[in-house]
Amino acid sequence: MTRPVVRLALDAMGGDNAPDSVVSGADLVRQRFPTAQFLFVGDEARVRPLVERHPGLAQVATYRHTTEIVTNDAKPSAALRGGKNSSMRLAINAVQEGLADGVISAGNTGALMAMAKLVLKTAPGIDRPAIVASFPTKRGASVMLDLGANLECDARNLVQFAIMGEAFARTVMGTAKPTVGLLNVGSEDQKGHEELRTAHAALRENKLDLSFHGFVEGDDITKGTVDVVVTDGFTGNVALKTAEGTAQFFSGLMRQAFSGSLGAKLGYLFAKPALGRLRERIDPRRYNGAMLLGLNGIVVKSHGGTDAFGFSNALGAAIEMIANDVATKIQDELQRLGSDLLDTTPPKPKTAAV
Amino acid sequence: MTRPVVRLALDAMGGDNAPDSVVSGADLVRQRFPTAQFLFVGDEARVRPLVERHPGLAQVATYRHTTEIVTNDAKPSAALRGGKNSSMRLAINAVQEGLADGVISAGNTGALMAMAKLVLKTAPGIDRPAIVASFPTKRGASVMLDLGANLECDARNLVQFAIMGEAFARTVMGTAKPTVGLLNVGSEDQKGHEELRTAHAALRENKLDLSFHGFVEGDDITKGTVDVVVTDGFTGNVALKTAEGTAQFFSGLMRQAFSGSLGAKLGYLFAKPALGRLRERIDPRRYNGAMLLGLNGIVVKSHGGTDAFGFSNALGAAIEMIANDVATKIQDELQRLGSDLLDTTPPKPKTAAV
Repeated sequence: MTRPVVRLALDAMGGDNAPDSVVSGADLVRQRFPTAQFLFVGDEARVRPLVERHPGLAQVATYRHTTEIVTNDAKPSAALRGGKNSSMRLAINAVQEGLADGVISAGNTGALMAMAKLVLKTAPGIDRPAIVASFPTKRGASVMLDLGANLECDARNLVQFAIMGEAFARTVMGTAKPTVGLLNVGSEDQKGHEELRTAHAALRENKLDLSFHGFVEGDDITKGTVDVVVTDGFTGNVALKTAEGTAQFFSGLMRQAFSGSLGAKLGYLFAKPALGRLRERIDPRRYNGAMLLGLNGIVVKSHGGTDAFGFSNALGAAIEMIANDVATKIQDELQRLGSDLLDTTPPKPKTAAV
Repeated sequence: MTRPVVRLALDAMGGDNAPDSVVSGADLVRQRFPTAQFLFVGDEARVRPLVERHPGLAQVATYRHTTEIVTNDAKPSAALRGGKNSSMRLAINAVQEGLADGVISAGNTGALMAMAKLVLKTAPGIDRPAIVASFPTKRGASVMLDLGANLECDARNLVQFAIMGEAFARTVMGTAKPTVGLLNVGSEDQKGHEELRTAHAALRENKLDLSFHGFVEGDDITKGTVDVVVTDGFTGNVALKTAEGTAQFFSGLMRQAFSGSLGAKLGYLFAKPALGRLRERIDPRRYNGAMLLGLNGIVVKSHGGTDAFGFSNALGAAIEMIANDVATKIQDELQRLGSDLLDTTPPKPKTAAV
């Protein structure tokens, strides 16, 4: 099976370790996806010499030069106004101009989301784009959305998120028949906000080829009770950061425990390979990359502090999304959906998290 | 300093290990609080023989006999109607009748909250009671509220939760000058729902003796950035369960890692004392007990599956709340609060989580 050509626009200047980690990450992912092509957007005088250290990468690289950047502390509105020639904006423009199939940046999240929405526009049938990411669970890995693009969501948004999340899990995560759950404060049908109960009822009697589990609770997230956790952007953002914080708290406690006494240090030496495998299994770099679903084009946000390995994983997710045509699959799922489900509630304008 | 007499009504039949864990937990806490008195509500034929195994406890124990119980799967509405002679209801009644200063149960959460609200009523100046609990953090321990009594909250509710939580941290946790944070998706002032921004502005320019930190995010919860995390009951419930789930996930991974190979098993033996101290530090039994703040009386919910040690810690928290007169301190704080802050938004009726 030959893989299709995938063209990615890279914000070469975004992120704490840019442009080095961007270039090295691209070289790493190229070894997994030999048909990928890279458009590096940024200061060519800095980026090109880095790329040319990797002859294989240099062969599939093109450049778009700009010295302007979006700073990490720029407000989204200011970035929209003043960042028209920034590496981030020009990388997004490349998708809109048909020069790339997707864009990736490790820069300012709020600016990326605002620019991507403005330039690429929401896909047909989708009221609001949502941010999705994957994370480790007891059973393997699951995904959650929305993680902060929409602070308040109605039932219609949640149902659309369920469809987008399911298509994402199927294509990018490779889950054969992803199960979908709605995040709530209890698992009984009558629990929660009205919007949640309406979405629950719609998904329960759905005509989709979608395996709906019902409501799930906070502890189901890392249990892996479902493959796709659907929630509003406020709750999803808090839940993801709470899980990350708790994981960091535990890692810190472990480090402390193993450096506390001679016995503990010896114990660490013996257990090192096993602990190494554990660390690898939950390595945040393996789960790097938050995708903005529901736009006309693939947009991926890498963690700003990640290294080449982490960046390559976010790139890999972007490539999977393009190669598997996730956007079209989401459209197909929406088409299959009964119009009654989509037309019950008109979309409301809401505040964005980013 | 002599401690005041504290009289507790115990739902002797609530929880998976009742009445054994209830009686043994009472005996454990009695050794820490010699002035505590216990009213055991439940099947006297089963409870009394257990109590009399502990001569010290038997001297400070009284009984209220009933054979009726609230089952774990009972709906709150059904428990309200059909549970009038249950051990849970009669224990709550004892507070209302002035026979006890507080009540504790490890039984059905929803039923306990519904019955307690009905019987004890909301305290003056409080629109809605909130559930608060403590948890371990990098810096020690913090508290969060609301954890599920109110799914949606307005700015006025959040400000009241801040006051109640601060008083709780000061008196029960022993934090000299507790810092308070509002849970949000970003720490900048302009982020989040309107209700959050209104509460933020009110707390920022507050006339209270309250140390307001501003907005905090999900990862700040276990970082211990603030001593009191204030949020609505939906978000609080999801965040707490997400943190618990992540902690369980990590513990499971550790167990797996240490049983995977001979080296890992040896390592475990060497590191056992250090790992034991870690386990002790984050032992959920140490943080057992969710308090319903804002009622005319102290109501504590113990985890249903806890043992005597866990139950004794929930009892200890209840005793601290009574001995320190948290309810009066919350009233005092509300009195000190400018009326402009409390009267801006009228309370709205909302769905309860329990």
